[in-house]
Amino acid sequence: MSIRDDDLGDTVTLAHGNGGRLMRLLITRLFKPHLGNPALDTESDAASISLPPGDVMVTTDGFTVQPLQFPGGDIGALAIDGVINDLAVSGAMPVYVTLAAFIEEGLEMAVLETIVKSLGAAAREAGVQVVAGDTKVVPRGHGGGLYLALTAIGVRAPGCELGVGRIQAGDKILVSGTVGDHGIAVMLAREAFGLRGDIASDAAIVLPLTKALLEVPGLRFMRDPTRGGLATVAHEIAQACRLGVILEEAVIPISPATASVCDILGYDALYLASEGRVVAVLAPAAAPAALAAWQALEAGQNAAIIGTVGVGRGVQLCTPIGGARYLPELEADALPRIC
Amino acid sequence: MSIRDDDLGDTVTLAHGNGGRLMRLLITRLFKPHLGNPALDTESDAASISLPPGDVMVTTDGFTVQPLQFPGGDIGALAIDGVINDLAVSGAMPVYVTLAAFIEEGLEMAVLETIVKSLGAAAREAGVQVVAGDTKVVPRGHGGGLYLALTAIGVRAPGCELGVGRIQAGDKILVSGTVGDHGIAVMLAREAFGLRGDIASDAAIVLPLTKALLEVPGLRFMRDPTRGGLATVAHEIAQACRLGVILEEAVIPISPATASVCDILGYDALYLASEGRVVAVLAPAAAPAALAAWQALEAGQNAAIIGTVGVGRGVQLCTPIGGARYLPELEADALPRIC
Repeated sequence: MSIRDDDLGDTVTLAHGNGGRLMRLLITRLFKPHLGNPALDTESDAASISLPPGDVMVTTDGFTVQPLQFPGGDIGALAIDGVINDLAVSGAMPVYVTLAAFIEEGLEMAVLETIVKSLGAAAREAGVQVVAGDTKVVPRGHGGGLYLALTAIGVRAPGCELGVGRIQAGDKILVSGTVGDHGIAVMLAREAFGLRGDIASDAAIVLPLTKALLEVPGLRFMRDPTRGGLATVAHEIAQACRLGVILEEAVIPISPATASVCDILGYDALYLASEGRVVAVLAPAAAPAALAAWQALEAGQNAAIIGTVGVGRGVQLCTPIGGARYLPELEADALPRIC
Repeated sequence: MSIRDDDLGDTVTLAHGNGGRLMRLLITRLFKPHLGNPALDTESDAASISLPPGDVMVTTDGFTVQPLQFPGGDIGALAIDGVINDLAVSGAMPVYVTLAAFIEEGLEMAVLETIVKSLGAAAREAGVQVVAGDTKVVPRGHGGGLYLALTAIGVRAPGCELGVGRIQAGDKILVSGTVGDHGIAVMLAREAFGLRGDIASDAAIVLPLTKALLEVPGLRFMRDPTRGGLATVAHEIAQACRLGVILEEAVIPISPATASVCDILGYDALYLASEGRVVAVLAPAAAPAALAAWQALEAGQNAAIIGTVGVGRGVQLCTPIGGARYLPELEADALPRIC
């Protein structure tokens, strides 16, 4: 085989997705080296997996973030973080993920490789194996460089029942850290505003945070505040429980840098995505223990008890000067394509 | 709630993917009614699933077919067929699927609903439940109307060991029906050639075909000849086994209509996708029983024993007049985006 036959080329072409020779090369030379593990058999249509005891949980998530690379991460790591976190906040331990990639013709091969490498590293950090994959190439002008769809499979301890339906009036709402940093980091990376900052995405695997809370009796519900941010999670709680949610503006952690950018550009951090935070609802008596458990972790240094589930409807924000206003449900998209 | 508040609108907008009110409406009013089942809880981050006994198998597949609707199917039904068939040819029974949708801004809501309905109907036909989903909306000009990524989870009887590695020299190769009809049907639907035909896609769930063969001792391997067609499956066999594959041109089933279009436009049906066919490799003594099992099914009326795995390398096509030529591995893409 000559050197030419092995060459993947500098950019992705339609032929890298046609099922033929170049697609085989793309899979064996670019995807497999970074994602390879004993369970990933790129020659089979389906993979055999072996799950530990427990209730099997599954989730799926699509990723279209622009730009593909941003301070604090890229679409590869973000995709693993995002799909793993959906299992984590359900109380599950992730074990396997599958990966479907939609690559736009013309994407630089070096960028694709960096992203796949980053995805592989995040998977290893999360302790999950990429067990099945698929790649499609779409024509130039029909994609955003790269879209990813991941599915995660894991197990949850029998009897671990978390859900928005378990929330009761009087329950406390906690957040594990500052909100909105991911949204601002991605927005600044677009360089469309003439602003440069050192705000890095908070994208991270939240398993340490969720595992810590699973040991706290009185845990009702966890969710990661991604699209639509903290305000959207609050609305989901209010709607599902048919109760009101009261948030205390003064104690919601927002980093000074994110707050500054929001002030300048008129964004509300409460609606911006985080990709490494957890919102949790606990029985009132359990909230202090949960806060202590989070604050004992590096990822939970800025954790806070930020609100209460109560009577009424909708989401209210209590201001430091004693006022209150309703936070509307997200309507127009402040920052599209942040995940 | 006023009528306006309930209105999804005529076309998909970015706000239908932002995590807020319109996304909630899209999910509850368009996706859930067609895909709903007891296991689909659109308010949770992850779904709890319950698998029957057996070895757990998983596969994932992305779909970018253009146009989204074509004679014999659409991207919704095709996506279920495609992902289910990957499990089926692995010898597994599918149980659950997950769905990630990348919707392009501007897609007509009525088209999206027709496709989701078609997907739901195909899932019910396959006996699988859509158990988790995610929707993203990408800006106009950054998608192809709709891309789908599905993951299927199923179980395989313990001891059912199929794989390309089990193939031996002397084994027989069967195909369950005519090849290339899907590729031609999609190509004609593009209306780019001034040709109109009554060729419908062969897209279908192949579970009846695979189940029939699982009962035949001597079954080594099955695959559905999608991207790259029959010739690409033959190359996969040849490469994985380090053996030669000899196909008999005269007995490979090709429908007269597909053959005509191929003649006119210069396509080779052996490289065109089928989405409802199975290629199987069996021990020589088992081939007649497998052929009989397939021909007893409606989907297997045109099944044939089309070749042999033998010594040598590469894929050879024996012609009716006694000659033979090597079929090259697919290089340029004859018909991109047929799945």
